[in-house]
Amino acid sequence: MKTATLLRINRDRLQQRLSALATIGRLPEGGVRRTAYSDEDLAARQWVTTAMQAAGMTVTLDAAGNLIGRYGGTEALPALATGSHIDTVPAGGRYDGALGVLAGIEAVATLHESGLRLRHPIEVIAFTDEEGEMIGSKAMAGTAKLTDPEHFRRLDGETIQACLQRVGGNWEALATAQRTEAAIAAYLELHVEQGGVLESEQCQIGVVQGIVSLQRFQVTITGRPNHAGTTPMHLRQDALYAASLLVAAVHDVAVEIPGDQVATVGLLNVLPNAANIVPGQVHLTIDMRDLSLETLSTMVTVLKQRIDEIMSSTSTQIELRPQHFVEPTLASPAVQAAIATVCDDLNLTHYSMPSRAIHDAQEIGRFTQMGMIFVPSQAGVSHAEDEYTSPEQCGQGADVLLNTLIALDAQLATGRHD
Amino acid sequence: MKTATLLRINRDRLQQRLSALATIGRLPEGGVRRTAYSDEDLAARQWVTTAMQAAGMTVTLDAAGNLIGRYGGTEALPALATGSHIDTVPAGGRYDGALGVLAGIEAVATLHESGLRLRHPIEVIAFTDEEGEMIGSKAMAGTAKLTDPEHFRRLDGETIQACLQRVGGNWEALATAQRTEAAIAAYLELHVEQGGVLESEQCQIGVVQGIVSLQRFQVTITGRPNHAGTTPMHLRQDALYAASLLVAAVHDVAVEIPGDQVATVGLLNVLPNAANIVPGQVHLTIDMRDLSLETLSTMVTVLKQRIDEIMSSTSTQIELRPQHFVEPTLASPAVQAAIATVCDDLNLTHYSMPSRAIHDAQEIGRFTQMGMIFVPSQAGVSHAEDEYTSPEQCGQGADVLLNTLIALDAQLATGRHD
Repeated sequence: MKTATLLRINRDRLQQRLSALATIGRLPEGGVRRTAYSDEDLAARQWVTTAMQAAGMTVTLDAAGNLIGRYGGTEALPALATGSHIDTVPAGGRYDGALGVLAGIEAVATLHESGLRLRHPIEVIAFTDEEGEMIGSKAMAGTAKLTDPEHFRRLDGETIQACLQRVGGNWEALATAQRTEAAIAAYLELHVEQGGVLESEQCQIGVVQGIVSLQRFQVTITGRPNHAGTTPMHLRQDALYAASLLVAAVHDVAVEIPGDQVATVGLLNVLPNAANIVPGQVHLTIDMRDLSLETLSTMVTVLKQRIDEIMSSTSTQIELRPQHFVEPTLASPAVQAAIATVCDDLNLTHYSMPSRAIHDAQEIGRFTQMGMIFVPSQAGVSHAEDEYTSPEQCGQGADVLLNTLIALDAQLATGRHD
Repeated sequence: MKTATLLRINRDRLQQRLSALATIGRLPEGGVRRTAYSDEDLAARQWVTTAMQAAGMTVTLDAAGNLIGRYGGTEALPALATGSHIDTVPAGGRYDGALGVLAGIEAVATLHESGLRLRHPIEVIAFTDEEGEMIGSKAMAGTAKLTDPEHFRRLDGETIQACLQRVGGNWEALATAQRTEAAIAAYLELHVEQGGVLESEQCQIGVVQGIVSLQRFQVTITGRPNHAGTTPMHLRQDALYAASLLVAAVHDVAVEIPGDQVATVGLLNVLPNAANIVPGQVHLTIDMRDLSLETLSTMVTVLKQRIDEIMSSTSTQIELRPQHFVEPTLASPAVQAAIATVCDDLNLTHYSMPSRAIHDAQEIGRFTQMGMIFVPSQAGVSHAEDEYTSPEQCGQGADVLLNTLIALDAQLATGRHD
């Protein structure tokens, strides 16, 4: 039994910090608006810097504006990193991102006030603009398009150069933010699930198997706009009727193939969109996610067959254009095993699952071994002001984070010494 | 054989007038913007007044702003009325409405220059705001909501009082515009089909059986917005997936029941409408049209069953609210027979069909016997700048209009004398 070696974080202090950070950008309904590079983001960065320093860390900023708190180790080893982000969507909640950063600080604070140091240094990182272009984790992974600042231009027209400058970064020096496995031996991220799986499975901790691949398509369906009264049914080329068959096909293809892949039509616009006109054109998006590229490929193949049938039966044209593709990132089996063992030791139930949301771990996992710990989201709600994870659940997640860092410290250091 | 008595209108003059009227509000692509009460509408009213006077008519305006040209008869009988409208949709064509008014003027001009008068007076009417609230024909039928000027308020916020004043009408005196069968013995309207049936059936003239009933519903589908990655398929309450099943059901119900009824979802809006969010709410309209109220009732019954099934299978709520209901108006069998006989006499092929578009004849037919004559619309296109009906087809329709007026004059006068 390892239970004697288990540490516990200070749940009250973690809650106090979650509450304090949530005052920066607080919305009337209890949510948070703290979009990247905003004044609220700047204020939160200052607040987090102070909290990191209070936990015994030295704080630096890299060229991507990533805020890095470092707690030294006892040996000359690469760091064990943890973290997440403190920016939010325009009307987000208190836990998405913030929990991962504050639990990392709390883990270090627990070590610090116990007078403990691990063999590896620990880094707690608040990544820049996770809810936007993820330039923080991409710069660190070397996957940011350094030659294309336009790629990172924001919707309000601001340049990435100006944005980075505001948070203390430097676009011209972005390449210097890149890290390797020689600098970060492993990365662990605690995050709210943002879905309803853990609640549905009645499990306390999610052990993430990997972050799914995302394939997104833009679809244009072209029929012929016409009078909704005078055009007989058999003479119609109704783009919305065709779209409705496609939306149903996207749903069906996700549920018919074995596995727990997901597919969504989230955006759909009709032209001309008037009650008395047969729709002439529809634009929609298809978003498909799974850990397995083979499954995604099968879904696309089946969908293309259905599209051919729909075009033929509705006399419309359907054009499917790839818009976005993200490679899957698998979590390290060793890190997954370490998380599961710690859960068992803490008497916490756990469930292995993919992450179908994107996280900074997706990019960091491209150059070093990665693992993620999920805690439940009440009713699966996220990116919303009423996002909620209980103090107990937050504390359980932070305990798993701290003790997994300790376990990895022992395993990885041992591995090197063998 | 009656062929000896047939008159022919002057096709060149009809075309010249269609071209001249189309210059008022002309759009760059060849279409017309002459919305009701606009400066273009005012200019067109002046132009039509002059044309009516040149054809031997005296012109008056009623309180609804209807422009009425009257060509006296030889006996003290109620009028035979014809007409349509000269207002257009914001980017309309040259024929919708204009053809009916100008062919009416041309019919009278043909009589006038031949020195002929019928027993009945003839009235050619340009009704006010057909493309909007149809206050012209509604006031004449006594179906306008006299107590509710807000009902007629325009989208741009202008009051009906101000609009009517601009075209020479008077809201306070609107009741004086009402007519009865004692004033108008029959009403005949020539109009472009605005659909593709005549072209598809290769017929020259449509003999309208009646103007369909229109039932329009507003539908709200409520599910739960959620993350498109993290929400497993079986935990979703996807409002757009439910909507897609409903759009397909609306299509199916129209094609599965015997008959040529139509049903359309023309407007559909998704909330929040983002590629990465499972839709939480959808608003859409259902527009159903048929001559038979029984068929419409059957469609609604079947649709409600499908809605119950969809709610159950998708875990969504679907609310169906009646938005708009228009009673059908049947064309007089005697007038239909007269039109068909005239077509035969003129060696024109004809086809009996309902009108699934709304026309002024719908309101006028509520108090007197009504008939409509359709001519083909190229490719079924209407309410569009490239609306087209050939000079020959316009002339054929006007010939049928003129000779049907002559036939009705004989029949109705005889009927009274029997």
